[in-house]
Amino acid sequence: MSKTYGVGIAGLGTVGSGFLKQLKNFKTHSQKTANINVIKIAVKNLRKKRSLSVKSLPLTTDTMSLATNDNIDILIELIGGSKGIAYKVVKKALQNNKHVITANKALLAVHGNELSKIAEQNNVCLNYEAAIAGGIPIVKAVRENLRLNKINKIYGILNGTCNYILTKMENNAGDFKNVLNDAQKKGFAELDPTFDIQGIDAAHKITLLSSIAFDIPVNFKATFIEGITKIDKYDFVFAKELGYSIKLLSVASKKLSKIEQRVHPCFVKLKSDIAKVSNEINAVVVNDLVIGKNIFEGPGAGAGPTGASVMSDLMDIIRGTYNYPLGVSMKKRKKLKIQKIDDLSFPYYLRITAKDKAGVMAKISKALSKRKISIESIIQKPSKRSNFAEIILITHTVKESSLLSSIKQIKRLPEVSSSVKFIRIEDSL
Amino acid sequence: MSKTYGVGIAGLGTVGSGFLKQLKNFKTHSQKTANINVIKIAVKNLRKKRSLSVKSLPLTTDTMSLATNDNIDILIELIGGSKGIAYKVVKKALQNNKHVITANKALLAVHGNELSKIAEQNNVCLNYEAAIAGGIPIVKAVRENLRLNKINKIYGILNGTCNYILTKMENNAGDFKNVLNDAQKKGFAELDPTFDIQGIDAAHKITLLSSIAFDIPVNFKATFIEGITKIDKYDFVFAKELGYSIKLLSVASKKLSKIEQRVHPCFVKLKSDIAKVSNEINAVVVNDLVIGKNIFEGPGAGAGPTGASVMSDLMDIIRGTYNYPLGVSMKKRKKLKIQKIDDLSFPYYLRITAKDKAGVMAKISKALSKRKISIESIIQKPSKRSNFAEIILITHTVKESSLLSSIKQIKRLPEVSSSVKFIRIEDSL
Repeated sequence: MSKTYGVGIAGLGTVGSGFLKQLKNFKTHSQKTANINVIKIAVKNLRKKRSLSVKSLPLTTDTMSLATNDNIDILIELIGGSKGIAYKVVKKALQNNKHVITANKALLAVHGNELSKIAEQNNVCLNYEAAIAGGIPIVKAVRENLRLNKINKIYGILNGTCNYILTKMENNAGDFKNVLNDAQKKGFAELDPTFDIQGIDAAHKITLLSSIAFDIPVNFKATFIEGITKIDKYDFVFAKELGYSIKLLSVASKKLSKIEQRVHPCFVKLKSDIAKVSNEINAVVVNDLVIGKNIFEGPGAGAGPTGASVMSDLMDIIRGTYNYPLGVSMKKRKKLKIQKIDDLSFPYYLRITAKDKAGVMAKISKALSKRKISIESIIQKPSKRSNFAEIILITHTVKESSLLSSIKQIKRLPEVSSSVKFIRIEDSL
Repeated sequence: MSKTYGVGIAGLGTVGSGFLKQLKNFKTHSQKTANINVIKIAVKNLRKKRSLSVKSLPLTTDTMSLATNDNIDILIELIGGSKGIAYKVVKKALQNNKHVITANKALLAVHGNELSKIAEQNNVCLNYEAAIAGGIPIVKAVRENLRLNKINKIYGILNGTCNYILTKMENNAGDFKNVLNDAQKKGFAELDPTFDIQGIDAAHKITLLSSIAFDIPVNFKATFIEGITKIDKYDFVFAKELGYSIKLLSVASKKLSKIEQRVHPCFVKLKSDIAKVSNEINAVVVNDLVIGKNIFEGPGAGAGPTGASVMSDLMDIIRGTYNYPLGVSMKKRKKLKIQKIDDLSFPYYLRITAKDKAGVMAKISKALSKRKISIESIIQKPSKRSNFAEIILITHTVKESSLLSSIKQIKRLPEVSSSVKFIRIEDSL
């Protein structure tokens, strides 16, 4: 006899529709022949026009009922958001011994410790492959295998919207706003793109990856976040001239028991693997001490990829695979120090708009050398502002706090316009 | 109480040593705290010098005893080879209800159907992550997730030795033999490199991937195999001029229920993802109808990567994850037609050495047009043989049998030297 699983789905947007389509094509997998019954689908608005026919679907507006319905073994939460009903229904379902599958990175980044504790205590699954990098099976790879290999760095491109915008800016040298508008028209950016372009979405994801890679609690607040809104087309021109591309990089690393968790625009060498990841594609690179480097690349969003990842999570539950939600048990999770960005060191790209007259460069150099910041290369170009020049400096590696002090001093120079821009450089990728 | 697993290891070469090192660093994984006891390690020669100290290891020369030892729950076979003791001990262990982990692609490519049948009947695991693409978790990804998504093509670079040799030939325009010698000195090629350079090793791997991707029996005999020994430095020069790189490509695809399984040198566009995979690195690209394209890239060999994959297989057994060895049960495996290479169609690179005199090109063109083979581009270069020219043609897509007929006719031309070379082109990667 094949076992039957009752499934409740909360939310019927892109991911929900993608998953339902996948479920139709479901072919039986692994050792058990399983029947999957969709018991209830909770939506906000029963009359909303949708991409699929809802006539025969068991819709309800009572989302919380999914957490208490005895026929539901597995709750699939596809509403999104760290607060409100998504949080409530997931928590309640776990408390009622239901397995949970979610695509909700915000929820897990904020409430991951609490929710994984409940799942662990009740011995139910909390799976979230669709929450990170869409169709790339990175949660499974890291949580089940790669975390055994002493990962020292996991990084990548985790937000397709930002990567699409940056790629277009690089190729056409377009301005941020125009490119964003275009991306919105083409469906590569949300109408409200705040979470994406400010790096928050990517930060949710790297926070979770950091937790499962390094056996540490989820700590979203400690993740440094800087978005892409200040990058302009000239940055791309200068970057290219210096042999770099600009990417919104998400990084989690571990050195001597200290953790880095950060999301920010970053200069990466044009020849690096990560520079070659273009448009809406996501990529994750896992560096460990045993294997070396594993690269995963694929679509990070869309109904197909995310639906497939939800399906994969469901198959794991049916197959009887149990993983601690965050890789190891609560007890074994280590509280490691997450470093402040001020205490990290990078080489930097520094772009200073200054009056085009003698002596300016000497003053800037002095401000830098005072804090022992040495310069690797300099480009000077006429600015679009007349009588001004753009001075582009690449520094050697220096602590961020030192750089910030120097910048403060440089900004005070009468010849320098108030905007002094810096972008971190990752040279070792 | 934590469960204890008795492990027997057959073979203590590179993979075995790598795995033992991993085991030392073992940290407990997943829901269970498990003890892993190495009961016996079978070696051929007790006195052989090894990279690790064997003093405290439970060595034996009686390999078959591992299959009957009651304290052994899991046999890890790392001997290699499709015949002889590796086959015998794996079969016996499965028959005795022991789980088996193996890195032996040759064994599975030849005996995979028989062995997976025994494993399935006895409800024991037969895991082989280390057999394909070293440290890349591709077996797990395809067997557990991606095969659900209607894969239509899985391809990649599955032999690090060949990729290393081809990369060096491309970069230094060196000759095959010199580069091979150099690769052997540096440890990137075996002393007997036959299985690698003739494409047999890659064919073992793509045969297995084809089986788990398409739910078909393992059929190694049906895999078309051509090695890299005939590629010379001039091919790379011409390829580059035409915008291509040359890779030993392994391809399994499914179109209208017909399967392709093939390994051969291949022109791939310089801009393609696969052209950028260099040196000893492996890469696998999975194309499916739901996600689109997933790329996996990492080291394909070495003690670390393969040891880590064996470890991952072991963790899956301890975690209680059961998969059918070939993805689906025997009953559900479909017998699909595997196409002969003659019946497939490609664009081709054609290299003809011919006397440098008027009328030759006309005769060649005639031989091609007779079989409706149209030409996309032509390059003519002086040959290193005086009074001869190298004529390089890129054809449009044509059936291989037609091309072979034309080549036969071209070879008969008195102006043409006997060697007419062709290399298949994959334009759509």
